Amino acid sequence: MTLNKREAQRGATKAAILQAASEEFDARGYAGTAISDIANRLDLTKGSVYFHFPSKALLAIEIVDRYFSAWVPMLEEVESRGLSGLTAIRWVSEQAAASYRDNATIRASVRLMREASLIDAEMPTPFVDWMENTHRWLIQARDAGELRDGLDLEDAAWHIVAVFHGIQEVASRLGECAQLASKNATIWSLLLKGIESGNETKA
Amino acid sequence: MTLNKREAQRGATKAAILQAASEEFDARGYAGTAISDIANRLDLTKGSVYFHFPSKALLAIEIVDRYFSAWVPMLEEVESRGLSGLTAIRWVSEQAAASYRDNATIRASVRLMREASLIDAEMPTPFVDWMENTHRWLIQARDAGELRDGLDLEDAAWHIVAVFHGIQEVASRLGECAQLASKNATIWSLLLKGIESGNETKA
Repeated sequence: MTLNKREAQRGATKAAILQAASEEFDARGYAGTAISDIANRLDLTKGSVYFHFPSKALLAIEIVDRYFSAWVPMLEEVESRGLSGLTAIRWVSEQAAASYRDNATIRASVRLMREASLIDAEMPTPFVDWMENTHRWLIQARDAGELRDGLDLEDAAWHIVAVFHGIQEVASRLGECAQLASKNATIWSLLLKGIESGNETKA
Repeated sequence: MTLNKREAQRGATKAAILQAASEEFDARGYAGTAISDIANRLDLTKGSVYFHFPSKALLAIEIVDRYFSAWVPMLEEVESRGLSGLTAIRWVSEQAAASYRDNATIRASVRLMREASLIDAEMPTPFVDWMENTHRWLIQARDAGELRDGLDLEDAAWHIVAVFHGIQEVASRLGECAQLASKNATIWSLLLKGIESGNETKA
């Protein structure tokens, strides 16, 4: 086997391990998943899983890293599409809901961050990056006249992130992830009137 | 020691174990808490903890049972105060937020239900009872003319529960539980316009 072929195979094995581990962590959580389960799914030895990931904690960290890097192209697309303000927030929430529904690595990451106390490694704080991005888009929305007067933008950003987290979490725990897109649409119709300009009369 | 005195002491010890276990489960989760930690906090032997709760799973179940029984007097108070419709939903959400902020047993229960897959016992499904109660109050609200036309009440009940869960969860994980009452007030001001009657013009 040439060096290139061997490297390609190593890369493929690593990707297969990450996929199998995502599915296991998503379904069974950190404590419920053993390296041997992942090895068995792929007909690998435990040793060959450990060759790529020397510990279960390192495997979890790699999956969570992929969660954070998954948003980079999405944020770039917001720019390249010229989206801003409420349109940007809404588009991103739709993309994020679809990723959560379709991608086991995203679901596994959310679960692993929730279970951070079980994992013997430094885990990133969730939510904070989303709140910062949402705050930035809300500033654009205010400057474009999209928001009602007197809205506290930092507080609104906090709540928008919390609301979407709640929907994702409840849908996930009740086995309703397939409906996430429509849940997402509903919450926008409920929330928008509290945010948008033109609804001040009954404030 | 008389029989009555001995029973009173047993009751006091059991209550102290439940309180210490609630604080441990709240702070460290199910997997991170050992019976010996609880015994040490109370200067008890492990054996005397096991006398009251033969396993960690039974201790977890008792705490979650207390979560569910805590809502019974609150729901009775809704009746005795004559609350209904949106007023009932809002009052209950304020009470629930205060309980979560102030009561380690409530916080521990929410965490234990989240970690149900780790616990070797049947755990109740969260959310569903809240959705049923909220749906009932929304029907009252619709009949009293409080709601905008065309609101899907089951869907709205689902979202109200998910929204409050999200706020509780994000506040908890960012260490902001002390602000739960004001977070709760904010989300009502954001959500109400999407729910109430009199806001149909831009629908």
